[in-house]
Amino acid sequence: MDLATLIGVIGAFAVVSAAIFLGGSPGVFFNVNSLIIVGVGTILVTMIKFSLAEFLGAAKIAVKAFSHKATSPEQLIELSVSLARAARQGGLLSLENEEINDEFMASGVRLLIDGHEQDVVRDMLTKDMRETVERHTSGRNIFKAIGDVGPAMGMIGTLIGLVQMLSAMDDPKQIGPAMAVALLTTLYGAMLANMFALPVADKLALRSKEERRSKSMVIDALIGIQDGQNPRVIEGLLQNYLPASKRSTDKEE
Amino acid sequence: MDLATLIGVIGAFAVVSAAIFLGGSPGVFFNVNSLIIVGVGTILVTMIKFSLAEFLGAAKIAVKAFSHKATSPEQLIELSVSLARAARQGGLLSLENEEINDEFMASGVRLLIDGHEQDVVRDMLTKDMRETVERHTSGRNIFKAIGDVGPAMGMIGTLIGLVQMLSAMDDPKQIGPAMAVALLTTLYGAMLANMFALPVADKLALRSKEERRSKSMVIDALIGIQDGQNPRVIEGLLQNYLPASKRSTDKEE
Amino acid sequence: MDLATLIGVIGAFAVVSAAIFLGGSPGVFFNVNSLIIVGVGTILVTMIKFSLAEFLGAAKIAVKAFSHKATSPEQLIELSVSLARAARQGGLLSLENEEINDEFMASGVRLLIDGHEQDVVRDMLTKDMRETVERHTSGRNIFKAIGDVGPAMGMIGTLIGLVQMLSAMDDPKQIGPAMAVALLTTLYGAMLANMFALPVADKLALRSKEERRSKSMVIDALIGIQDGQNPRVIEGLLQNYLPASKRSTDKEE
Amino acid sequence: MDLATLIGVIGAFAVVSAAIFLGGSPGVFFNVNSLIIVGVGTILVTMIKFSLAEFLGAAKIAVKAFSHKATSPEQLIELSVSLARAARQGGLLSLENEEINDEFMASGVRLLIDGHEQDVVRDMLTKDMRETVERHTSGRNIFKAIGDVGPAMGMIGTLIGLVQMLSAMDDPKQIGPAMAVALLTTLYGAMLANMFALPVADKLALRSKEERRSKSMVIDALIGIQDGQNPRVIEGLLQNYLPASKRSTDKEE
Amino acid sequence: MDLATLIGVIGAFAVVSAAIFLGGSPGVFFNVNSLIIVGVGTILVTMIKFSLAEFLGAAKIAVKAFSHKATSPEQLIELSVSLARAARQGGLLSLENEEINDEFMASGVRLLIDGHEQDVVRDMLTKDMRETVERHTSGRNIFKAIGDVGPAMGMIGTLIGLVQMLSAMDDPKQIGPAMAVALLTTLYGAMLANMFALPVADKLALRSKEERRSKSMVIDALIGIQDGQNPRVIEGLLQNYLPASKRSTDKEE
Repeated sequence: MDLATLIGVIGAFAVVSAAIFLGGSPGVFFNVNSLIIVGVGTILVTMIKFSLAEFLGAAKIAVKAFSHKATSPEQLIELSVSLARAARQGGLLSLENEEINDEFMASGVRLLIDGHEQDVVRDMLTKDMRETVERHTSGRNIFKAIGDVGPAMGMIGTLIGLVQMLSAMDDPKQIGPAMAVALLTTLYGAMLANMFALPVADKLALRSKEERRSKSMVIDALIGIQDGQNPRVIEGLLQNYLPASKRSTDKEE
Repeated sequence: MDLATLIGVIGAFAVVSAAIFLGGSPGVFFNVNSLIIVGVGTILVTMIKFSLAEFLGAAKIAVKAFSHKATSPEQLIELSVSLARAARQGGLLSLENEEINDEFMASGVRLLIDGHEQDVVRDMLTKDMRETVERHTSGRNIFKAIGDVGPAMGMIGTLIGLVQMLSAMDDPKQIGPAMAVALLTTLYGAMLANMFALPVADKLALRSKEERRSKSMVIDALIGIQDGQNPRVIEGLLQNYLPASKRSTDKEE
Repeated sequence: MDLATLIGVIGAFAVVSAAIFLGGSPGVFFNVNSLIIVGVGTILVTMIKFSLAEFLGAAKIAVKAFSHKATSPEQLIELSVSLARAARQGGLLSLENEEINDEFMASGVRLLIDGHEQDVVRDMLTKDMRETVERHTSGRNIFKAIGDVGPAMGMIGTLIGLVQMLSAMDDPKQIGPAMAVALLTTLYGAMLANMFALPVADKLALRSKEERRSKSMVIDALIGIQDGQNPRVIEGLLQNYLPASKRSTDKEE
Repeated sequence: MDLATLIGVIGAFAVVSAAIFLGGSPGVFFNVNSLIIVGVGTILVTMIKFSLAEFLGAAKIAVKAFSHKATSPEQLIELSVSLARAARQGGLLSLENEEINDEFMASGVRLLIDGHEQDVVRDMLTKDMRETVERHTSGRNIFKAIGDVGPAMGMIGTLIGLVQMLSAMDDPKQIGPAMAVALLTTLYGAMLANMFALPVADKLALRSKEERRSKSMVIDALIGIQDGQNPRVIEGLLQNYLPASKRSTDKEE
Repeated sequence: MDLATLIGVIGAFAVVSAAIFLGGSPGVFFNVNSLIIVGVGTILVTMIKFSLAEFLGAAKIAVKAFSHKATSPEQLIELSVSLARAARQGGLLSLENEEINDEFMASGVRLLIDGHEQDVVRDMLTKDMRETVERHTSGRNIFKAIGDVGPAMGMIGTLIGLVQMLSAMDDPKQIGPAMAVALLTTLYGAMLANMFALPVADKLALRSKEERRSKSMVIDALIGIQDGQNPRVIEGLLQNYLPASKRSTDKEE
């Protein structure tokens, strides 16, 4: 998924850049004033809508959400089964030697090793899950706001450019280039919103749903392991999170 | 219904193509750059919003949804009644020889023949039904996203074209054709969204509702057959799924 | 109400036609290609969204909804009271000779004469009521879809016209008329949506609410008649459906 | 509040008129054809959406809502307390001599004097309240419809004007004035919707909320008076309808 | 947060002003007529939607919401703990000497010192909280209305300017400047809505959520102090309002 986001953003900008370069004179598309109106203007207006801290946090949330390699549900099931086996053979303390490549699972296993009560384990992990979801929601709202404000600032920039051009229309030859510059802010705003901010907001929503499912699986698995349940039973339980087509078919051997 | 979709899509594009060809010079309407900005750009941005797998799955879902010939409710009732009769006469095992032209019904009958418990049969078929609905919902969201992104990429392409044209306005004679090319991306985006993606998304929603109803009927019928209920009773039960005007009127003979 | 719809549709088109004829050269406003793109295109795209049968049914629903003369609540109360009196004097069978000018009431009275159980009567009439509402909802959705698709096809047609005009801009004198033709599809789409499809969709919604109320009144009245209740009691019951200002004031004589 | 509406509507049109007159040649802004397309067209299309009676009633509702001088909550409390005192001293019949300047309160007091049961009083007044709310809702929907249809008719009128102008573009000097006339319908539609219909619809919603609160207060007060409750108790009860900052502070003397 | 709003509004207008000044001839962007149409027009139309009092109150609400320095949740916890300690050592009356820099907390402590019942304390504080939220909601609705009306008035102003320009198109050289002036109202409306009214409305919503949380914390703390609960218990209770990452980690010492 992270790959899809990366490919999507880079690819979309590459396609647009190609169109710009193939049209000759790419320099026309770069204008500092226009960039400042749309870029800095959007940042400032978005800052009115949120607090300074939230705004600065949005980028971090996005980077984290996309760089963080999610463990697939299948891998989580496999991992849970092997942990459950180890725990049945050597007790919960033996889990200390297991290599656990899912961060949330690892932090949960540490709670088991430390010997916390089941309610404490569940509470702490559930709180962690909820906060991840809240953080994603907050990040998503900021990206949506950027997607709203960007085109608005683009339109304001274009109106300013048009007024300047029209009020000083001495040389008809100047009209074209001046209008081109005026349109740049609209273009910047449209690209910022449609090729970056809004799709990223949508992806964060999807991502949030996935993390919630993934963390729910881990919590279920850890409770099962702490209870010393049969690895097969844990596997069956976790497979309910999978679409039917992906469930292991040897369930009823 | 599949026919309506096919006729609709092909017909709509035919009408537009006719308008293009009748206007002379249809070649003007074909531009590789514009096609890439709208086509590839829309695919890439939609990929940001979803995972790679989901995106690739959307086409498959659409093809399957439209090529799959749905059994009409009336046919399902007839089929259920004949299966119920056969089961009463020769037992569930005799169903093995029946020819069943509805895939979902056939897979359900196989469960009956295999002698699964009623709860198992109901669970497995209900899960299958739910997944079909989920698959349609996912497909629908992707088509809706394409319908949103397409026109946005079209506008971005047109803005790029306008900026290029305006910034190099040497020869007034060149303005017209350059602007025509610039407008092409808007046209492509509008056609992609309004004549394909959005209507297909709406159709998938309708289709999903129908499949849910159809599969509910099959599940009700199979439970009745397993219970050895009277074919007339099953018929009465299933007729509740029909609008009153289509119900057989000899219900109270 | 039917009158309001008829006057509204005809009047609105008359006003627009007057503006067209007063401007001279009304022939400019008629263009076969444009009509086909908007008219046939809208029909085809709407067909993608719905099934063929539903689409063809929409016109029938609209015609029926608007030609069907609704019995006013006051008339229904009067009719119910006179039927209740007749039933008390001569028994339910005597209703056979009553002239009943409301179709739904007439079909309900036939059920009473046939001696059906109260539950059967209520069930059959309620189903009939629900289906009328569903039919209106379905018709409404199709008119709303037409109202969405029409302007979109209009914009596509205009874009095609603009591209054709701009790509062959030899004679500046040709620009005006070509652009006029290009704008025609937008005009057709706007008129189709705003002066016909969307208002009719809204009217069907209102109509549906009214028929639901009217049929509820009939069902309440018939149940009361079957129970042999006092005509005054039935009148009081039905007057709850009226706004207070229209209730007969001699209620407490 | 009525004042705010009156000042708002008149003031907004005055500001726009000033801009028109200051620009010289105000006659340009008056065009009978354009007025008919937007004015009569909007009325006719709105008539399709509603029944004739509802449409004609909307103006009456608006006039009544805005001319009707609402009694302020504070005045209602004062009035209720003085009525409660009078009723305690001289019985309900003595209320006949009280001067009551709130219409709803007066009609309620008449019910008390007539000696109706408490349930009857509450029912009749509640029905009256509900109908006022419904009437406002209905009026509001019609003003919202006008606010939707107005700009649509304005666009249709402008398109007609553009097509006429473009198809007969002989004299370049004629373009400007012809286009000015074409834009007039858009201007009329925008003014009708944004400076009149939509704000009035919003005001009716606010007004409806206020009348509901005010009539609730009257009903509570009348029930208390009929029960012969202490005026102080009634005052305390009614003060719950006020925002805390306006409550009399001697409540706990 | 207040800082973010201030920086945002001032910064956004500074960025736009810079673009205007860098383009030379900033005087072109100032036009009294345009300012009156958008500024006074928006105020008048917003006045139709609300009552005069509400409208005038909106500015006050905004100023208060942004100038009011909110106590951070962490500070509130610290303050509550120190108050709880003081109350346990010296009784509720000793709180009189505490310096309390949160206004809502101070007014609540006064209630405790006055010896009110717990129910009374809770009721009065809850009402105060609810009114703050209502006041913010009302202010928010007015800013949203301004954000809707502003661009509409801008469009009306531009249409008026265009009609004036087009109807008197004698000197082609005049077209540019006249059109520049016409576009000014659209620019003013867009800036008013997108750089001020809508973001402030969004911020008031966020602010309202924060104040509600903050006042809930104070109420919980005061009830705990009145009950003479252990300061640690109160601290634990209030920490539930914090995101987990900010909770003090020595909770389980």
